Amino acid sequence: MTALTLHPDRLLPADPEQRRLARAIFAEIEHLPIVSPHGHLDVALFVEDEPFADPAHLFITSDHYVVRLLHAQGVPVGDLGLVPRSGGERASGREVWRQLCTHWGALAGTPSRLWLEHELYELCDLRTVPSADSADESYDALTARLQEDDLRPRALYERFGLDVLTTTDPATADLAMHAALRNDPTWKGRLLPNFRPDGVLDPAHPQFIENLARLAEVSGSDTSSYRGYIAALEDRRRFFQRNGATAADHGVPLTTTERLSGSEAEAVYERARTGRATGAEVEAFRGHMLDEMARMSAEDGMVMQLHIGVARDYDALYAATYGPDIGQDFPHAVDFTRTLRPLVSRYGNSDGFRMVLYTIDETTYSREIGPLVSYFPGLFAGPPWWFLDSPDAMTRAFVALGETAGITKLTGFVDDTRSLFGIGARHDVARRVCAGYLARLVAEHRLPLDEATKLAVGYAYERPKELFKV
Amino acid sequence: MTALTLHPDRLLPADPEQRRLARAIFAEIEHLPIVSPHGHLDVALFVEDEPFADPAHLFITSDHYVVRLLHAQGVPVGDLGLVPRSGGERASGREVWRQLCTHWGALAGTPSRLWLEHELYELCDLRTVPSADSADESYDALTARLQEDDLRPRALYERFGLDVLTTTDPATADLAMHAALRNDPTWKGRLLPNFRPDGVLDPAHPQFIENLARLAEVSGSDTSSYRGYIAALEDRRRFFQRNGATAADHGVPLTTTERLSGSEAEAVYERARTGRATGAEVEAFRGHMLDEMARMSAEDGMVMQLHIGVARDYDALYAATYGPDIGQDFPHAVDFTRTLRPLVSRYGNSDGFRMVLYTIDETTYSREIGPLVSYFPGLFAGPPWWFLDSPDAMTRAFVALGETAGITKLTGFVDDTRSLFGIGARHDVARRVCAGYLARLVAEHRLPLDEATKLAVGYAYERPKELFKV
Amino acid sequence: MTALTLHPDRLLPADPEQRRLARAIFAEIEHLPIVSPHGHLDVALFVEDEPFADPAHLFITSDHYVVRLLHAQGVPVGDLGLVPRSGGERASGREVWRQLCTHWGALAGTPSRLWLEHELYELCDLRTVPSADSADESYDALTARLQEDDLRPRALYERFGLDVLTTTDPATADLAMHAALRNDPTWKGRLLPNFRPDGVLDPAHPQFIENLARLAEVSGSDTSSYRGYIAALEDRRRFFQRNGATAADHGVPLTTTERLSGSEAEAVYERARTGRATGAEVEAFRGHMLDEMARMSAEDGMVMQLHIGVARDYDALYAATYGPDIGQDFPHAVDFTRTLRPLVSRYGNSDGFRMVLYTIDETTYSREIGPLVSYFPGLFAGPPWWFLDSPDAMTRAFVALGETAGITKLTGFVDDTRSLFGIGARHDVARRVCAGYLARLVAEHRLPLDEATKLAVGYAYERPKELFKV
Repeated sequence: MTALTLHPDRLLPADPEQRRLARAIFAEIEHLPIVSPHGHLDVALFVEDEPFADPAHLFITSDHYVVRLLHAQGVPVGDLGLVPRSGGERASGREVWRQLCTHWGALAGTPSRLWLEHELYELCDLRTVPSADSADESYDALTARLQEDDLRPRALYERFGLDVLTTTDPATADLAMHAALRNDPTWKGRLLPNFRPDGVLDPAHPQFIENLARLAEVSGSDTSSYRGYIAALEDRRRFFQRNGATAADHGVPLTTTERLSGSEAEAVYERARTGRATGAEVEAFRGHMLDEMARMSAEDGMVMQLHIGVARDYDALYAATYGPDIGQDFPHAVDFTRTLRPLVSRYGNSDGFRMVLYTIDETTYSREIGPLVSYFPGLFAGPPWWFLDSPDAMTRAFVALGETAGITKLTGFVDDTRSLFGIGARHDVARRVCAGYLARLVAEHRLPLDEATKLAVGYAYERPKELFKV
Repeated sequence: MTALTLHPDRLLPADPEQRRLARAIFAEIEHLPIVSPHGHLDVALFVEDEPFADPAHLFITSDHYVVRLLHAQGVPVGDLGLVPRSGGERASGREVWRQLCTHWGALAGTPSRLWLEHELYELCDLRTVPSADSADESYDALTARLQEDDLRPRALYERFGLDVLTTTDPATADLAMHAALRNDPTWKGRLLPNFRPDGVLDPAHPQFIENLARLAEVSGSDTSSYRGYIAALEDRRRFFQRNGATAADHGVPLTTTERLSGSEAEAVYERARTGRATGAEVEAFRGHMLDEMARMSAEDGMVMQLHIGVARDYDALYAATYGPDIGQDFPHAVDFTRTLRPLVSRYGNSDGFRMVLYTIDETTYSREIGPLVSYFPGLFAGPPWWFLDSPDAMTRAFVALGETAGITKLTGFVDDTRSLFGIGARHDVARRVCAGYLARLVAEHRLPLDEATKLAVGYAYERPKELFKV
Repeated sequence: MTALTLHPDRLLPADPEQRRLARAIFAEIEHLPIVSPHGHLDVALFVEDEPFADPAHLFITSDHYVVRLLHAQGVPVGDLGLVPRSGGERASGREVWRQLCTHWGALAGTPSRLWLEHELYELCDLRTVPSADSADESYDALTARLQEDDLRPRALYERFGLDVLTTTDPATADLAMHAALRNDPTWKGRLLPNFRPDGVLDPAHPQFIENLARLAEVSGSDTSSYRGYIAALEDRRRFFQRNGATAADHGVPLTTTERLSGSEAEAVYERARTGRATGAEVEAFRGHMLDEMARMSAEDGMVMQLHIGVARDYDALYAATYGPDIGQDFPHAVDFTRTLRPLVSRYGNSDGFRMVLYTIDETTYSREIGPLVSYFPGLFAGPPWWFLDSPDAMTRAFVALGETAGITKLTGFVDDTRSLFGIGARHDVARRVCAGYLARLVAEHRLPLDEATKLAVGYAYERPKELFKV
C-alpha cells in the first residue's frame, strides 16, 4: 500500500524561481470564490440534497472521462456499470470500483487522475493510493464517508466557495426544478439554467419534429410556420431569462453562418419540419439559425456560447447496441475563420453581443480563435474544453491565446463539468496552471508580478463573473 | 504612477544556466547591423525626413496590431483615429492616445506591448507606465520628444544600424520616389523596392482590369494579348531590378500551381481581362501565373516570397462601411504540400531559384514547410509572420523548423513591418528569442556554445543578407 | 579540428532538479534490451554478415534523412551517390563523404546530427567533429574501422542488446532469406517479417495488375475473382505468420473505411484488376480493403499498423528522371476521426484486434489519435514517425498523447529505421526524451518517481514487446 499524497506545489513549474513566483500568484487566487457559468449538473442534486450513494457511480459510471479511459484499457461497459452486463444483471458498485483500482496506473499523466487524487484525498480523506489489493477496503471507507453531511451537494456548494452554478437545458425545458430550488428558503446558493436549443435548431436531430411540437406547446406559439417558430424561440429565451439564465449554448454541426432570405428560410423550414429537407438544406438551415440566435443574443443580451467540432455518438456499434450517449464523442478539425465570417461581420461589433468560442481542435488557437477575439469586441476565447482541459494543454492555450489576443480576451476558467464533486479539483488545477503560466512571463521579465497577479484574479474569478453576467 | 523599465534579461529563459548561455549568445548578436529585406515602409519617410508628428498616429492609428487589440477592447475605430467619428469629426491625437493608456493592461502578454515598451523607453525616454491618469502628461512629453532630430527617419536608420530597408510596391509603381532618394547625395542608406504584382495576377482583384491597362501603359507592352501581358510582367521585373529590387512577393489566394497549356492560358486570360472568368478559371489562372512568376524568378534571380492563407478585409460590415483595409485580415488553414507540388517539382531544384515560404498557420511548420525546405535547395522557411511574430510563437517555429530542416534553412528574421519606429524593438525581441532557443540546445548538450553562437549570427544578420541578395 | 564528444547528460532537461530525476529514470532504461517491431532492414545483412563496406554509403547514400538534408543544401543527388552524375560515372565514397563533412554545420539541431554523432563516436571511435579539412582523414579511419569484426551486422545485433528485429515485406514475398536465416544454427537473433500488402490493395499502384498475377502464383489462389483475391490474401497472411510475422502494415492513401457490399466489392475489383477503375472507385476500394484487413487482423491476431498522410515520390521531376523512391515523400494533413469511423466502430472493441496509428501530422495527436486511443481498447498511438522522430517533436507527442490517453496507450518507441547501424542511437535518443518528459511530471508533483520509472520501462521495452506480440 502506497501513501496517497497531495503536494502543495503540484503543477507549479519545476524551475525554482518560476515556482516561487507561481506560489505567490497562486496564493492570491487559490481561495477566491468559484464562478461556474457553464456546466452540466443536475438541479435535482440540490433540490434533494441527498448524500452521494455510491463511490463507483460517483467517480466512474457518471464520469465519461473515467469511463473512456477504463474502456480503453479493455474494461467492458457492462463492468463499468454503464449498461447491464451481457447476462442481464448490473455490475455492483464494488465490482465497478475494483476496475478503477486495478487500472489506476493506466490513468497516470491524465487530468482525470489529478482530479480523482484531489477528490479522494481532500474530500474523502483517502490516504492510500487505489490498488487492486486495497479495493474493497477503500470502497467501504468511501461508501461510509459519502454518507457524512459535509459531502452532501449543498455542503459541497459551500465548501467550494461557489458563487454561482449552472445547468444546461433544452429549449423546451419547464425549469420547474429551478423554480422550486429558487423558492426554497433553505437554499442559499445560485443555480442558473442555460439555454441550449440544439434539439429545435438542427433538422438532423433525431427528435427534431417532436421537439417542434413540444416547443409549440410550451411557448404557445404555432411552430407550423417559420414566423411562429421564431416567435416560439424568442418566447423561450424570455422564459429562460425570467428564470435567471444569462447565457445560451450551441453545439450543432456547423459549416456556414450565411443568412437565408426570408422566403428561403420559410421554404427550408417548411421542408425541415416535415422531414423532407436535403442534406444541403439542413446545413444551410443550421447556419441561418445560428445567425438568428446571434441576432437574438445581440437583442436580449444572453451570452452566446459555441461548442463545435465534435462527432457525437461516434462508435456506431455502441450507438446501435446501447442507444445515444454511450458511443462517446470525438473531435475533428474545424474552420472558425470561414464558417463564422458572415455572423461575426454582422454582430461581432454590436454593443451587447457576446460570443464565447470553445474548441477541441487546438490548431485553431493561434490560427483562428486568437485572431478573431483579438479583433471583435464581442468575441471571447473560451477555456480549454474537453480533451484539452489538462494542465499542459491548458498551458498551450494560455500561451497561444495570450500572445495573440491578450489574456483579457480569455473568458477565464469554465469547468463545463458533469461532476459537482470534481468542481473544486478542476478549478484548483486550472488556477495552478494559470499561476504557472504567468509566473514564467514574470520570470522572463515580460510582465511585472503585480500585474500578473491582477491578471490571475481576473482569470480565476472576475472575468467569468462579468462576462457571463452572473 | 508605476515606473516603466526594460529589464536587460527580458525574454531570456528563466532557468539560470540557460539564461547564462542565452546572455552569452545574445551579446554576440545584439548589436549586429539590421537587414530588413521585406517590409511595408513608405519611401516618403526618408525622402522628406520630417519628424513624426503625433504619438497617437505613430503608436496606434498607423499600427494595425495595436488598432486590432484596442478594437477588441471595444474602442470604436473612430476613437482610434482610423476613420471619422459618427459625428464626422476626427478624434484628436490626444484622445486616441488616451485610449491606449486606458487599455494598456489589456495588451499584457502580447508582442505589441513588448515593442511599445521598448520604443517608449528606449527611443522616447518615457519612464512611466502608460495609464489613464498620466495620459495627457505622457502625450505632451512624447509629442515634444518626437520633434527632436535624433528621432527623424534618417536618424533612426542610423541608430538602428540598418544595413538595408525595403518597401513593397505594386507591379505598376513608377518607383520615382525610390529614384529620387537614391539620387539624393545626403542619403547614406539603402532602401530597395520589392515587386508585388498581386493586383495584376489575380483576376478577382477589384481593380484587375484597370491594373492591366496601367500595366500596358508603364511597360509599353500591349496587355490585350496573353503574350503581351507576359512580356509586360517581364519588363516590369527588369524595371524593378534596375531600381535595386532583389525580391518579389506574392499574396494571392492559392489552391494550385498547375501550369496551363499555352492555349488554355491564352483563353483564360482573354476571359479574365474582360471580366468573364469563372471562379474555377480564376483559381486556375492564379496557380498558372504563380508558376510563371517562379519561372521568371528562376531566370532573373529575384527571390520569390509567398504569403498565403489570409482572408483579406474579413469584417464585411467594416469593408462595406469604410472600404478596403479597415476590415482586418484573418488566417485560415493552408495546404502547402499539395498546392505547391507542381511548382516546386519544376523549379525547386533549379540553380538560382529561391522561394521563401511564410505562414500564419503554424501547423504547417512541422508538417509542410519544414519537410519542403529540408529537401528542396531553392526553398527556405520565412520567419514567423503576423500573429506568430510573438516570443513564444517564434520559439515554436524555431523548434519545429530547426529540428526538421536545420537552422540554416530558416531565412533569419524578417520584420515585415509597417513601422520604422518599431524596427529596433522587433529585431531586439527576435534576437533574444533566437538566443534563448539556442541556449536551450546548448544547455541540453545538443550543440556546443560556439556553434550555437555562429548559428545566431547567421540568423540575425548573415543569412537574410545573403539569401535576399541584399 | 574540434573534439567530438558525447555528453552523458545530452538531451536531458536543463533544469537541475529535472535533470537529476531524468538521470535516475534513464539509468533504469538505458541498458534494457531493444525491441524493434517495425523497420526496414534488409535480411541479407544478417544472412551474409559482411562488414559495412563504405562510410559514405552507410552514413549518407543509404540514409534518406541525410540525403534530404544535404540535398537541401544544394548538393546534387549525383554527388550523394544516389544516381550517376550527369557525366555517367558515380561519385566515389570519398567524394560523397566530403559532402557530409563540408555541410556538417547545416545539420545542427536535427536528429540526424544527434544520431550520426552517436554512431561516429560510440561505434566508430571518431573523436573529431567532421569538417572539410579532415574529411579524407576521417574517411580513411572510418573505412578501416568498419572492417573490424565488432561492427558486422550480427555483432551489432548483440552489441545493441536487440531482442527482436523486423523487416517490411510485400504480400508476394517468398521470405526465403528469412527462412534461411532462421535455419542458420550460427544465428542467435530473431528477425521477423512484416506483412505490407500495399502493392496488392491499391489499384492506383503502378504494378497493381502484375502484383495480382504474382499474388495468384505464390498463393495458388485464382485472383481473377474477388473471392479468389480475398482467399489469396488470407493465405499470404497465414504464410507470413508461419514465418514468424506478428504484424501487418498499411500505407495506402486513405479517405474512407466504409465497407462495400459483396456485389459492389466484386464489381469494383473486377474493374480494378483490369485497369478500368475510376478515381472514386479506387478510393472506395482502398477503404473497403482496409476494412477487410482489419477483419482479418481481428481474426488472425496480426497487429495492424497504419501509416497514412504521405505524398510519395513527391518531386515529380526527380521521379520522372530517376524513377521511384528518389523523389522523397512529404506529409499532408489527415483526418483520422472521419476516415476511420466505420472501421473502428466495427473492430475497435473486438477482442484481439490491435491497430497502431502513426502520424506525421502532429495536429492529430490531441485532436484525433489521443481521443481515439483513449476510448477504443484495440487502438494504440504509434511513436513519432519520420519528421517527428526528433527530441522536441517526441516530447510534444508524449505531452499531447500522455495527457489525453495515458502513457500506456502509446506503443513505446518503434525505430522504423532503414539503418541497422543507427538503431542504438535512435533508441538512446528516444529513451533520453522519455526520461526527460517523465522527470518533468515528477518535478511538478504529478507523478511519483517510482511510478514514472515503471512507465519508462514500459515505454522502452515491455509494452512494444507485449503489444506487437514479439
